Amino acid sequence: MNIVLLSGGSGKRLWPLSNDVRSKQFIKIFKKEDGTYESMLQRVYQQIKKVDADATVTIATSKTQVSAIHNQLGEDVGISVEPCRRDTFPAIALATAYLVDVQKVSPEETVVVCPVDPYVNDDYFEALKVLGEQAEKGEANLVLMGIEPTYPSAKYGYIIPKDKSSVSKVSTFKEKPDEETAKEYIAQGALWNGGVFAYRLNYVLDKARQLIDFTDYYDLFAKYDTLKKISFDYAVVERETKIQVMRFAGQWKDLGTWNTLTEAMAETCVGDALMDETCKNVHIINEMSVPVLAMGLKDVVISASPDGILVSDKLQSSRIKPFVDKLDNQIMFAEKSWGSYQVLDVEKGSLTIKVTLNAGHRMNYHSHKHRDEIWVVLSGKGRTIVDGMEQEISTGDVITMQAGCRHIVFADTELKLIEVQLGGEISVYDKQKYPIGT
Amino acid sequence: MNIVLLSGGSGKRLWPLSNDVRSKQFIKIFKKEDGTYESMLQRVYQQIKKVDADATVTIATSKTQVSAIHNQLGEDVGISVEPCRRDTFPAIALATAYLVDVQKVSPEETVVVCPVDPYVNDDYFEALKVLGEQAEKGEANLVLMGIEPTYPSAKYGYIIPKDKSSVSKVSTFKEKPDEETAKEYIAQGALWNGGVFAYRLNYVLDKARQLIDFTDYYDLFAKYDTLKKISFDYAVVERETKIQVMRFAGQWKDLGTWNTLTEAMAETCVGDALMDETCKNVHIINEMSVPVLAMGLKDVVISASPDGILVSDKLQSSRIKPFVDKLDNQIMFAEKSWGSYQVLDVEKGSLTIKVTLNAGHRMNYHSHKHRDEIWVVLSGKGRTIVDGMEQEISTGDVITMQAGCRHIVFADTELKLIEVQLGGEISVYDKQKYPIGT
Repeated sequence: MNIVLLSGGSGKRLWPLSNDVRSKQFIKIFKKEDGTYESMLQRVYQQIKKVDADATVTIATSKTQVSAIHNQLGEDVGISVEPCRRDTFPAIALATAYLVDVQKVSPEETVVVCPVDPYVNDDYFEALKVLGEQAEKGEANLVLMGIEPTYPSAKYGYIIPKDKSSVSKVSTFKEKPDEETAKEYIAQGALWNGGVFAYRLNYVLDKARQLIDFTDYYDLFAKYDTLKKISFDYAVVERETKIQVMRFAGQWKDLGTWNTLTEAMAETCVGDALMDETCKNVHIINEMSVPVLAMGLKDVVISASPDGILVSDKLQSSRIKPFVDKLDNQIMFAEKSWGSYQVLDVEKGSLTIKVTLNAGHRMNYHSHKHRDEIWVVLSGKGRTIVDGMEQEISTGDVITMQAGCRHIVFADTELKLIEVQLGGEISVYDKQKYPIGT
Repeated sequence: MNIVLLSGGSGKRLWPLSNDVRSKQFIKIFKKEDGTYESMLQRVYQQIKKVDADATVTIATSKTQVSAIHNQLGEDVGISVEPCRRDTFPAIALATAYLVDVQKVSPEETVVVCPVDPYVNDDYFEALKVLGEQAEKGEANLVLMGIEPTYPSAKYGYIIPKDKSSVSKVSTFKEKPDEETAKEYIAQGALWNGGVFAYRLNYVLDKARQLIDFTDYYDLFAKYDTLKKISFDYAVVERETKIQVMRFAGQWKDLGTWNTLTEAMAETCVGDALMDETCKNVHIINEMSVPVLAMGLKDVVISASPDGILVSDKLQSSRIKPFVDKLDNQIMFAEKSWGSYQVLDVEKGSLTIKVTLNAGHRMNYHSHKHRDEIWVVLSGKGRTIVDGMEQEISTGDVITMQAGCRHIVFADTELKLIEVQLGGEISVYDKQKYPIGT
């Protein structure tokens, strides 16, 4: 099975765990059998591999997510990086070209495209396999998955099938309705449109060539920023007449708000948290190193991260976005491809962060114009290069770097260090990268 | 006026703002006219000085609070330090001897003793002055303040006066009753016992000499740990027949729980906090550097400090103590006489803290057996002595100290530094102090 997972943008609706660099699919919130936690992304990836160990998984995403994806899934996963945001049609066209030109998949093969963050069981991925096989038959150019509605939701678009068989022609599409209208649709046999579909690679490449002049993936990637924003639904789905829908009746949840996310949690507390016996329907997700104590609460979610602390009535939490927009959102924690960093202290003229490099990883070789930096090694072994001079480092070593000085760390084992940044203008944009050895 | 403020023990009922080294009287929660915040201690001290600029204020407290008191009130305030906990009679006897032998107050003068943390208006301190003047008259050995009850509280002991005049003989004392009994007491004209009283210094010194063999303050201080634990109520008040009570009808609140404390707050948010319009009767006290967002809550207090995060129904918050006892209470922030420190990061084998030294202050000259330390100066100017070698320091300087090495910092201006502690056994008890210059 070839599968493209669409890894969407930064969500503020799960603040403070999601932010401009960490989307909800990266939050480690699901307990595994070994007691550790995994993210939606990791959960979905494992589920796919369980159903089809040979599946070619490609994640279509933006540059900002590449580090976090590699950190969570390793280096082997395929990533089709959108150089900039151009809506779903260019993104899917780019991922399709990536499969053919980079992953060397035959354009005659089919691919299943779906969002990266559904909360589903393994039967969903079994169904995706069948969806791909249905597309292979060639009865239709596009085969959608239609999810059997469990309630008249106003959150989803609807697909009206021609009949009630498990695979049917599509009669028509309906935009997100109000609840009353949703009831009428359901009475007519409508299915939720979860944005899941399968097609032969050639089909989308042909569609793309009708709109865009390009030779292959590399060419499309190069001219990506010149492309018009257009959704896949508008450019392809709504215009296609040879289109089928396959029913799916298993669990399918969109964990887009704190209310729905906490419903999917196996336990009420993640992290250092304690609640008294008078708490009812309370969930605590604490990523900080200090404890959270909850007493006498009802229907409340508490979420604490180095970015901030949310305490909200669960239903009310769906209205979070405008409030988060008002907050001063300094990003205090970020996963990178090489490990992670956490801001420990912010002062006028200084910034102190903790850097964790995973074994075998390194930063970029870089310098800063407007700040000096000092590293203190907390633990681990590795090497630094500072202005071309290589040096072995371990616990207790101190490395000082004046502004302008080029520097890099390599981690031989997991390496933790405190980095003190000093200067009048400390900014993430003050960074020049160099090839190693220059 | 001579006044002894009893500064009581570590309260966990206002966790996470109070902890083993910070009692509730030190929490900066009351907004001043200039927009900054002051603590109960600072508020009470200012109120006393406003009513009587020449008042001799002595704070009777334990060793652990001395740093915080000096930090909040400066170096001039008198402090009678209990070398160990021996209940209120020895503490009051020691403070009384301190007034005579250290502050050189005549033993014929009177003193007013009261807790450090009542939430009151200036009229309360006017009343304390009158209380002292009443004790001067010599009509009684002990003059208590009786607070006119505003409701039948089960939290306080009661004083039954002989009559309803403003100063009356005491008929009897009653222990904390249940609410029904409290109603009966109040019907009989009972007053709350707020632990406030005045006496001639000689009176308590004589009482003390009946129980303890000592010559003066210094002798009493030296043998303090041999004293028997006994309360002032039991040793003195309940046995005294020449005893009066003076009524006080002004505001008097004991801000001992989050519920009562938040009632006294001028605003709903202290620190970086935001709440939506559906929050009702919600208070947020946030001492962290990241924002708190509250949505859809009712009757809730949220309190966040570097020690932890409390989210509680206000009434339920009075039951906090057993839950805080269950938490792993690492103290992450402390005020010291020389400034403050905050734990930024805890790892196996390392501890990273931020130290702020106030201008003109210094640490002790000390060493550690089991850990190396590294200082990185963030801002300010000062001097270090490391193994006898003096050196000027300023922003960006790095000082490394091996285990065993003696070290100290002097702050010429306010001085901020990052201290990284490295070692297998990091403990606050691993500290040897030395005279400077050795």
